[in-house]
Amino acid sequence: MNVFKELSLVLIFILGFFQEPVKGRMVQQLTALTRPHPEEAAAFARWLVCQSSWGVLSTIANDLGGTPFGNVVSFSDGQPDKGSGIPYFYLTALDPTARYALKDQRSSFTISEYPIGTCGSKDPENPSCAKTTLIGKLKLLDGNSKEAEFAQNALFVKHPEMKDWPKDHNFQFFGLEIHDIFLINWFGGPKPLTVEQYLQAPMNVTFSTDD
Amino acid sequence: MNVFKELSLVLIFILGFFQEPVKGRMVQQLTALTRPHPEEAAAFARWLVCQSSWGVLSTIANDLGGTPFGNVVSFSDGQPDKGSGIPYFYLTALDPTARYALKDQRSSFTISEYPIGTCGSKDPENPSCAKTTLIGKLKLLDGNSKEAEFAQNALFVKHPEMKDWPKDHNFQFFGLEIHDIFLINWFGGPKPLTVEQYLQAPMNVTFSTDD
Repeated sequence: MNVFKELSLVLIFILGFFQEPVKGRMVQQLTALTRPHPEEAAAFARWLVCQSSWGVLSTIANDLGGTPFGNVVSFSDGQPDKGSGIPYFYLTALDPTARYALKDQRSSFTISEYPIGTCGSKDPENPSCAKTTLIGKLKLLDGNSKEAEFAQNALFVKHPEMKDWPKDHNFQFFGLEIHDIFLINWFGGPKPLTVEQYLQAPMNVTFSTDD
Repeated sequence: MNVFKELSLVLIFILGFFQEPVKGRMVQQLTALTRPHPEEAAAFARWLVCQSSWGVLSTIANDLGGTPFGNVVSFSDGQPDKGSGIPYFYLTALDPTARYALKDQRSSFTISEYPIGTCGSKDPENPSCAKTTLIGKLKLLDGNSKEAEFAQNALFVKHPEMKDWPKDHNFQFFGLEIHDIFLINWFGGPKPLTVEQYLQAPMNVTFSTDD
Protein backbone atom coordinates (compact mmCIF):
# COMPACT_ATOMS: atom_id res chain seq x y z
CA MET A 1 0.00 0.00 0.00
CA ASN A 2 2.83 2.40 0.83
CA VAL A 3 4.20 1.87 -2.64
CA PHE A 4 0.86 2.75 -4.19
CA LYS A 5 0.53 5.75 -1.90
CA GLU A 6 3.96 6.97 -3.02
CA LEU A 7 3.04 6.25 -6.62
CA SER A 8 -0.19 8.26 -6.37
CA LEU A 9 1.61 11.16 -4.68
CA VAL A 10 4.18 11.23 -7.49
CA LEU A 11 1.42 11.08 -10.08
CA ILE A 12 -0.47 13.94 -8.40
CA PHE A 13 2.72 16.01 -8.41
CA ILE A 14 3.37 15.27 -12.08
CA LEU A 15 -0.24 15.92 -13.12
CA GLY A 16 -0.12 19.26 -11.33
CA PHE A 17 3.24 20.13 -12.84
CA PHE A 18 2.11 19.52 -16.42
CA GLN A 19 -1.40 20.92 -16.02
CA GLU A 20 -0.18 24.25 -14.65
CA PRO A 21 1.18 25.74 -17.88
CA VAL A 22 -1.93 24.58 -19.72
CA LYS A 23 -4.13 26.27 -17.12
CA GLY A 24 -1.83 29.26 -17.39
CA ARG A 25 -2.80 29.57 -21.02
CA MET A 26 -6.45 28.82 -20.30
CA VAL A 27 -6.96 30.78 -17.09
CA GLN A 28 -10.26 32.01 -18.48
CA GLN A 29 -11.69 28.64 -19.40
CA LEU A 30 -14.11 28.07 -16.54
CA THR A 31 -16.16 25.60 -18.53
CA ALA A 32 -15.91 23.54 -21.69
CA LEU A 33 -18.25 23.27 -24.65
CA THR A 34 -18.24 20.37 -27.06
CA ARG A 35 -16.47 21.24 -30.33
CA PRO A 36 -19.25 21.29 -32.97
CA HIS A 37 -18.90 19.48 -36.28
CA PRO A 38 -17.19 21.78 -38.81
CA GLU A 39 -20.31 21.64 -41.01
CA GLU A 40 -22.25 23.37 -38.24
CA ALA A 41 -20.76 26.72 -39.20
CA ALA A 42 -22.79 28.97 -36.90
CA ALA A 43 -22.50 26.74 -33.84
CA PHE A 44 -18.80 26.25 -34.55
CA ALA A 45 -18.11 29.98 -34.74
CA ARG A 46 -20.04 30.56 -31.51
CA TRP A 47 -18.08 27.75 -29.85
CA LEU A 48 -14.75 29.23 -30.97
CA VAL A 49 -15.68 32.69 -29.68
CA CYS A 50 -17.03 31.35 -26.39
CA GLN A 51 -14.01 29.13 -25.76
CA SER A 52 -11.48 31.86 -26.46
CA SER A 53 -10.30 34.54 -24.05
CA TRP A 54 -8.22 36.73 -26.34
CA GLY A 55 -7.67 37.64 -29.96
CA VAL A 56 -6.37 40.37 -32.23
CA LEU A 57 -8.43 43.52 -32.68
CA SER A 58 -7.63 45.40 -35.88
CA THR A 59 -8.35 49.09 -36.37
CA ILE A 60 -7.10 51.78 -38.74
CA ALA A 61 -3.94 53.64 -37.66
CA ASN A 62 -4.74 57.18 -38.77
CA ASP A 63 -1.26 58.25 -37.58
CA LEU A 64 0.49 55.55 -39.65
CA GLY A 65 -0.89 56.28 -43.10
CA GLY A 66 -4.11 54.37 -42.52
CA THR A 67 -2.32 51.07 -42.05
CA PRO A 68 -4.43 48.33 -40.45
CA PHE A 69 -3.19 47.96 -36.86
CA GLY A 70 -3.74 44.65 -35.06
CA ASN A 71 -3.49 44.58 -31.27
CA VAL A 72 -3.66 41.70 -28.78
CA VAL A 73 -6.67 42.11 -26.50
CA SER A 74 -8.67 40.05 -24.04
CA PHE A 75 -12.41 39.76 -24.55
CA SER A 76 -15.55 38.00 -23.43
CA ASP A 77 -18.89 37.35 -25.12
CA GLY A 78 -20.71 36.44 -21.91
CA GLN A 79 -20.67 34.13 -18.95
CA PRO A 80 -18.48 31.05 -19.46
CA ASP A 81 -21.26 28.72 -20.57
CA LYS A 82 -23.57 31.40 -21.97
CA GLY A 83 -21.79 33.26 -24.73
CA SER A 84 -23.78 35.91 -26.59
CA GLY A 85 -21.57 35.81 -29.68
CA ILE A 86 -20.78 39.53 -29.31
CA PRO A 87 -17.18 40.18 -28.23
CA TYR A 88 -16.79 42.82 -25.53
CA PHE A 89 -13.53 44.53 -24.61
CA TYR A 90 -12.08 46.57 -21.73
CA LEU A 91 -9.84 49.18 -23.35
CA THR A 92 -8.12 52.43 -22.47
CA ALA A 93 -7.44 55.34 -24.82
CA LEU A 94 -3.87 55.19 -23.51
CA ASP A 95 -3.67 52.29 -25.98
CA PRO A 96 -3.80 53.10 -29.72
CA THR A 97 -6.59 50.62 -30.52
CA ALA A 98 -9.21 52.49 -28.49
CA ARG A 99 -7.96 55.84 -29.81
CA TYR A 100 -8.18 54.64 -33.40
CA ALA A 101 -11.68 53.17 -32.88
CA LEU A 102 -12.94 56.44 -31.42
CA LYS A 103 -11.90 58.15 -34.69
CA ASP A 104 -12.87 55.36 -37.11
CA GLN A 105 -15.03 52.45 -35.94
CA ARG A 106 -14.14 50.13 -38.83
CA SER A 107 -12.62 47.08 -37.17
CA SER A 108 -12.27 43.32 -37.15
CA PHE A 109 -11.59 40.80 -34.39
CA THR A 110 -9.65 37.64 -35.15
CA ILE A 111 -9.51 34.41 -33.15
CA SER A 112 -7.52 31.21 -33.71
CA GLU A 113 -8.48 27.78 -32.41
CA TYR A 114 -4.79 26.95 -32.07
CA PRO A 115 -4.17 28.29 -28.53
CA ILE A 116 -7.29 26.55 -27.23
CA GLY A 117 -5.41 23.30 -27.74
CA THR A 118 -7.93 21.43 -29.88
CA CYS A 119 -5.89 21.51 -33.10
CA GLY A 120 -3.54 18.78 -31.95
CA SER A 121 -0.36 18.90 -34.01
CA LYS A 122 -1.98 20.62 -37.02
CA ASP A 123 -0.31 23.75 -38.25
CA PRO A 124 -2.02 27.00 -37.15
CA GLU A 125 -2.58 27.86 -40.84
CA ASN A 126 -4.09 24.45 -41.61
CA PRO A 127 -7.75 25.09 -42.58
CA SER A 128 -8.92 22.34 -40.21
CA CYS A 129 -7.44 24.33 -37.30
CA ALA A 130 -10.22 26.89 -37.16
CA LYS A 131 -9.97 30.65 -37.43
CA THR A 132 -12.65 33.29 -37.45
CA THR A 133 -12.70 37.02 -38.11
CA LEU A 134 -15.67 39.08 -36.99
CA ILE A 135 -15.87 42.23 -39.11
CA GLY A 136 -17.78 45.35 -38.19
CA LYS A 137 -17.63 48.45 -36.02
CA LEU A 138 -15.93 48.79 -32.64
CA LYS A 139 -18.21 50.90 -30.46
CA LEU A 140 -17.73 52.50 -27.07
CA LEU A 141 -20.58 51.45 -24.79
CA ASP A 142 -22.57 53.92 -22.73
CA GLY A 143 -21.17 53.35 -19.23
CA ASN A 144 -24.67 53.44 -17.72
CA SER A 145 -26.26 51.06 -20.22
CA LYS A 146 -27.46 47.51 -19.61
CA GLU A 147 -25.06 46.38 -22.33
CA ALA A 148 -22.10 47.91 -20.46
CA GLU A 149 -23.22 46.08 -17.32
CA PHE A 150 -23.43 42.83 -19.32
CA ALA A 151 -19.98 43.50 -20.78
CA GLN A 152 -18.46 44.16 -17.34
CA ASN A 153 -19.90 40.96 -15.87
CA ALA A 154 -18.84 38.96 -18.95
CA LEU A 155 -15.29 40.34 -18.91
CA PHE A 156 -14.58 40.30 -15.19
CA VAL A 157 -15.65 36.66 -14.73
CA LYS A 158 -13.27 35.46 -17.46
CA HIS A 159 -10.54 38.04 -16.72
CA PRO A 160 -10.58 38.47 -12.92
CA GLU A 161 -7.56 40.78 -12.83
CA MET A 162 -9.40 43.43 -14.91
CA LYS A 163 -11.40 44.66 -11.93
CA ASP A 164 -8.09 45.64 -10.28
CA TRP A 165 -6.64 47.47 -13.29
CA PRO A 166 -5.65 51.10 -12.53
CA LYS A 167 -8.69 53.38 -12.28
CA ASP A 168 -6.70 56.37 -13.55
CA HIS A 169 -6.20 54.61 -16.89
CA ASN A 170 -9.88 55.14 -17.62
CA PHE A 171 -10.63 51.71 -19.06
CA GLN A 172 -13.98 51.64 -20.83
CA PHE A 173 -16.19 48.91 -22.26
CA PHE A 174 -16.36 48.46 -26.01
CA GLY A 175 -18.40 46.05 -28.14
CA LEU A 176 -18.06 44.87 -31.72
CA GLU A 177 -21.12 45.48 -33.91
CA ILE A 178 -20.74 42.53 -36.30
CA HIS A 179 -21.49 43.14 -39.99
CA ASP A 180 -19.72 40.17 -41.62
CA ILE A 181 -18.22 36.86 -40.46
CA PHE A 182 -15.22 35.04 -41.92
CA LEU A 183 -14.88 31.43 -40.73
CA ILE A 184 -12.52 28.72 -41.88
CA ASN A 185 -12.77 25.45 -39.97
CA TRP A 186 -12.17 22.86 -42.70
CA PHE A 187 -10.92 22.54 -46.25
CA GLY A 188 -12.81 24.15 -49.13
CA GLY A 189 -12.69 27.84 -48.25
CA PRO A 190 -14.65 30.07 -45.86
CA LYS A 191 -18.01 28.81 -44.58
CA PRO A 192 -21.04 30.79 -45.71
CA LEU A 193 -22.37 32.30 -42.48
CA THR A 194 -24.67 35.27 -41.91
CA VAL A 195 -24.64 37.38 -38.75
CA GLU A 196 -28.20 36.26 -38.05
CA GLN A 197 -27.27 32.56 -38.33
CA TYR A 198 -24.30 33.17 -36.03
CA LEU A 199 -26.23 35.05 -33.35
CA GLN A 200 -29.10 32.55 -33.35
CA ALA A 201 -26.90 29.43 -33.20
CA PRO A 202 -27.43 27.06 -30.28
CA MET A 203 -24.42 26.06 -28.21
CA ASN A 204 -23.90 22.54 -26.94
CA VAL A 205 -23.00 22.99 -23.30
CA THR A 206 -21.41 20.17 -21.35
CA PHE A 207 -19.65 19.88 -18.05
CA SER A 208 -15.97 20.66 -18.07
CA THR A 209 -13.42 17.89 -17.92
CA ASP A 210 -11.01 20.42 -16.39
CA ASP A 211 -13.02 21.05 -13.22
CA MET B 1 13.66 -2.71 -8.52
CA ASN B 2 10.48 -3.96 -10.28
CA VAL B 3 8.46 -1.43 -8.36
CA PHE B 4 10.72 1.38 -9.55
CA LYS B 5 10.60 0.02 -13.08
CA GLU B 6 6.78 0.06 -12.98
CA LEU B 7 6.87 3.52 -11.45
CA SER B 8 9.15 4.87 -14.19
CA LEU B 9 7.00 3.28 -16.91
CA VAL B 10 3.88 4.94 -15.48
CA LEU B 11 5.70 8.25 -15.25
CA ILE B 12 6.90 7.97 -18.86
CA PHE B 13 3.31 7.29 -19.95
CA ILE B 14 1.97 10.27 -17.99
CA LEU B 15 4.72 12.61 -19.12
CA GLY B 16 3.98 11.66 -22.72
CA PHE B 17 0.26 12.08 -22.21
CA PHE B 18 0.54 15.58 -20.79
CA GLN B 19 3.35 16.78 -23.02
CA GLU B 20 1.49 15.91 -26.22
CA PRO B 21 -1.05 18.76 -26.22
CA VAL B 22 1.65 21.22 -25.22
CA LYS B 23 3.83 20.05 -28.09
CA GLY B 24 0.71 20.19 -30.24
CA ARG B 25 0.57 23.91 -29.57
CA MET B 26 4.31 24.32 -29.92
CA VAL B 27 5.02 21.95 -32.75
CA GLN B 28 7.22 24.62 -34.30
CA GLN B 29 9.38 25.23 -31.26
CA LEU B 30 12.47 23.29 -32.24
CA THR B 31 14.67 25.28 -29.90
CA ALA B 32 14.34 27.66 -26.99
CA LEU B 33 15.80 31.10 -26.46
CA THR B 34 16.11 32.74 -23.08
CA ARG B 35 13.40 35.37 -22.51
CA PRO B 36 15.26 38.72 -22.47
CA HIS B 37 14.68 41.30 -19.74
CA PRO B 38 11.74 43.55 -20.69
CA GLU B 39 14.08 46.55 -20.71
CA GLU B 40 16.01 44.98 -23.60
CA ALA B 41 13.29 46.06 -26.04
CA ALA B 42 14.98 45.07 -29.31
CA ALA B 43 16.22 41.69 -28.06
CA PHE B 44 12.83 41.04 -26.47
CA ALA B 45 10.92 41.75 -29.69
CA ARG B 46 13.31 39.51 -31.66
CA TRP B 47 12.86 36.76 -29.05
CA LEU B 48 9.06 37.01 -29.25
CA VAL B 49 9.10 36.83 -33.05
CA CYS B 50 11.62 33.97 -33.13
CA GLN B 51 9.73 31.93 -30.51
CA SER B 52 6.35 32.32 -32.19
CA SER B 53 5.00 30.24 -35.07
CA TRP B 54 1.82 32.13 -35.90
CA GLY B 55 0.11 35.47 -35.55
CA VAL B 56 -2.53 37.70 -37.07
CA LEU B 57 -1.79 39.44 -40.36
CA SER B 58 -3.95 42.51 -40.96
CA THR B 59 -4.64 43.95 -44.39
CA ILE B 60 -7.25 46.28 -45.87
CA ALA B 61 -10.45 44.63 -47.11
CA ASN B 62 -11.18 46.63 -50.26
CA ASP B 63 -14.40 44.62 -50.73
CA LEU B 64 -15.62 45.40 -47.20
CA GLY B 65 -15.46 49.20 -47.21
CA GLY B 66 -11.75 49.32 -46.41
CA THR B 67 -12.20 47.61 -43.05
CA PRO B 68 -8.97 46.27 -41.52
CA PHE B 69 -9.08 42.48 -41.92
CA GLY B 70 -7.04 40.32 -39.52
CA ASN B 71 -6.29 36.74 -40.51
CA VAL B 72 -4.57 33.91 -38.64
CA VAL B 73 -1.39 32.88 -40.43
CA SER B 74 1.73 30.84 -39.76
CA PHE B 75 5.09 32.47 -40.27
CA SER B 76 8.82 32.12 -39.77
CA ASP B 77 11.64 34.62 -39.49
CA GLY B 78 14.41 32.08 -40.06
CA GLN B 79 15.89 28.85 -38.78
CA PRO B 80 14.77 28.00 -35.23
CA ASP B 81 17.78 29.46 -33.47
CA LYS B 82 18.66 32.05 -36.11
CA GLY B 83 15.72 34.39 -36.56
CA SER B 84 16.20 37.30 -38.96
CA GLY B 85 13.44 39.40 -37.41
CA ILE B 86 11.60 39.56 -40.76
CA PRO B 87 8.37 37.52 -40.79
CA TYR B 88 7.83 35.43 -43.90
CA PHE B 89 4.53 33.87 -44.93
CA TYR B 90 3.27 31.16 -47.29
CA LEU B 91 -0.02 32.44 -48.67
CA THR B 92 -2.44 31.72 -51.50
CA ALA B 93 -4.59 34.29 -53.32
CA LEU B 94 -7.47 31.87 -52.68
CA ASP B 95 -7.34 33.48 -49.22
CA PRO B 96 -8.43 37.14 -48.89
CA THR B 97 -5.27 38.30 -47.07
CA ALA B 98 -2.98 37.66 -50.07
CA ARG B 99 -5.55 39.14 -52.46
CA TYR B 100 -5.84 42.30 -50.34
CA ALA B 101 -2.06 42.65 -50.02
CA LEU B 102 -1.60 42.39 -53.78
CA LYS B 103 -3.94 45.41 -54.14
CA ASP B 104 -2.75 47.40 -51.08
CA GLN B 105 0.47 46.43 -49.29
CA ARG B 106 -0.31 48.33 -46.07
CA SER B 107 -0.28 45.66 -43.38
CA SER B 108 0.64 44.78 -39.82
CA PHE B 109 1.55 41.50 -38.15
CA THR B 110 0.60 40.91 -34.51
CA ILE B 111 2.03 38.36 -32.09
CA SER B 112 1.14 37.58 -28.48
CA GLU B 113 3.47 35.99 -25.94
CA TYR B 114 0.46 34.30 -24.35
CA PRO B 115 0.34 31.11 -26.46
CA ILE B 116 4.08 30.58 -26.02
CA GLY B 117 3.30 29.76 -22.41
CA THR B 118 5.68 32.18 -20.67
CA CYS B 119 2.98 34.50 -19.30
CA GLY B 120 2.03 32.10 -16.54
CA SER B 121 -1.42 32.99 -15.26
CA LYS B 122 -1.27 36.64 -16.33
CA ASP B 123 -4.12 37.89 -18.45
CA PRO B 124 -3.35 38.09 -22.20
CA GLU B 125 -4.05 41.85 -22.05
CA ASN B 126 -1.75 42.37 -19.06
CA PRO B 127 1.14 44.59 -20.29
CA SER B 128 3.69 42.22 -18.74
CA CYS B 129 2.42 39.45 -21.07
CA ALA B 130 4.15 40.76 -24.16
CA LYS B 131 2.63 41.69 -27.49
CA THR B 132 4.20 43.13 -30.58
CA THR B 133 2.86 44.51 -33.84
CA LEU B 134 5.17 44.86 -36.82
CA ILE B 135 3.79 47.54 -39.14
CA GLY B 136 4.73 47.95 -42.77
CA LYS B 137 4.11 46.54 -46.23
CA LEU B 138 3.32 42.93 -47.12
CA LYS B 139 5.24 42.10 -50.27
CA LEU B 140 5.12 39.13 -52.63
CA LEU B 141 8.64 37.74 -53.03
CA ASP B 142 10.16 36.99 -56.44
CA GLY B 143 9.95 33.19 -56.58
CA ASN B 144 13.48 32.96 -57.96
CA SER B 145 15.09 35.32 -55.43
CA LYS B 146 17.50 34.41 -52.64
CA GLU B 147 15.00 35.91 -50.19
CA ALA B 148 12.27 33.52 -51.42
CA GLU B 149 14.69 30.62 -50.93
CA PHE B 150 15.44 31.87 -47.40
CA ALA B 151 11.70 32.23 -46.71
CA GLN B 152 10.98 28.70 -47.94
CA ASN B 153 13.71 27.17 -45.79
CA ALA B 154 12.63 29.25 -42.79
CA LEU B 155 8.94 28.33 -43.17
CA PHE B 156 9.26 24.65 -44.05
CA VAL B 157 11.52 23.83 -41.09
CA LYS B 158 9.05 25.33 -38.60
CA HIS B 159 5.92 24.28 -40.51
CA PRO B 160 6.76 20.88 -42.02
CA GLU B 161 3.29 20.29 -43.43
CA MET B 162 3.58 23.34 -45.72
CA LYS B 163 5.74 21.50 -48.22
CA ASP B 164 2.84 19.10 -48.81
CA TRP B 165 0.15 21.77 -49.24
CA PRO B 166 -1.76 21.49 -52.54
CA LYS B 167 0.33 22.71 -55.48
CA ASP B 168 -2.80 23.84 -57.40
CA HIS B 169 -3.51 26.42 -54.64
CA ASN B 170 -0.50 28.38 -55.84
CA PHE B 171 0.93 29.27 -52.45
CA GLN B 172 3.56 31.99 -52.72
CA PHE B 173 6.11 33.46 -50.34
CA PHE B 174 5.48 36.90 -48.85
CA GLY B 175 7.59 39.02 -46.52
CA LEU B 176 6.77 41.98 -44.31
CA GLU B 177 8.79 45.11 -44.98
CA ILE B 178 8.82 46.59 -41.47
CA HIS B 179 8.39 50.37 -41.13
CA ASP B 180 7.33 50.68 -37.47
CA ILE B 181 7.35 48.45 -34.39
CA PHE B 182 4.83 48.45 -31.54
CA LEU B 183 6.01 46.51 -28.47
CA ILE B 184 4.45 46.23 -25.02
CA ASN B 185 6.25 43.88 -22.64
CA TRP B 186 5.86 45.70 -19.30
CA PHE B 187 3.92 48.49 -17.65
CA GLY B 188 4.38 52.10 -18.77
CA GLY B 189 3.31 51.99 -22.40
CA PRO B 190 4.96 50.88 -25.65
CA LYS B 191 8.74 50.55 -25.69
CA PRO B 192 10.58 52.98 -27.97
CA LEU B 193 12.10 50.76 -30.63
CA THR B 194 13.37 51.58 -34.11
CA VAL B 195 13.44 49.09 -36.99
CA GLU B 196 17.24 49.38 -37.04
CA GLN B 197 17.54 48.58 -33.31
CA TYR B 198 15.19 45.62 -33.82
CA LEU B 199 17.02 44.17 -36.80
CA GLN B 200 20.45 44.58 -35.21
CA ALA B 201 19.49 43.10 -31.84
CA PRO B 202 21.48 40.09 -30.63
CA MET B 203 19.59 37.00 -29.55
CA ASN B 204 20.60 34.95 -26.53
CA VAL B 205 20.56 31.37 -27.74
CA THR B 206 20.52 28.50 -25.28
CA PHE B 207 19.86 24.79 -25.52
CA SER B 208 16.25 23.78 -25.38
CA THR B 209 14.84 22.17 -22.26
CA ASP B 210 12.24 20.50 -24.47
CA ASP B 211 14.68 18.40 -26.52
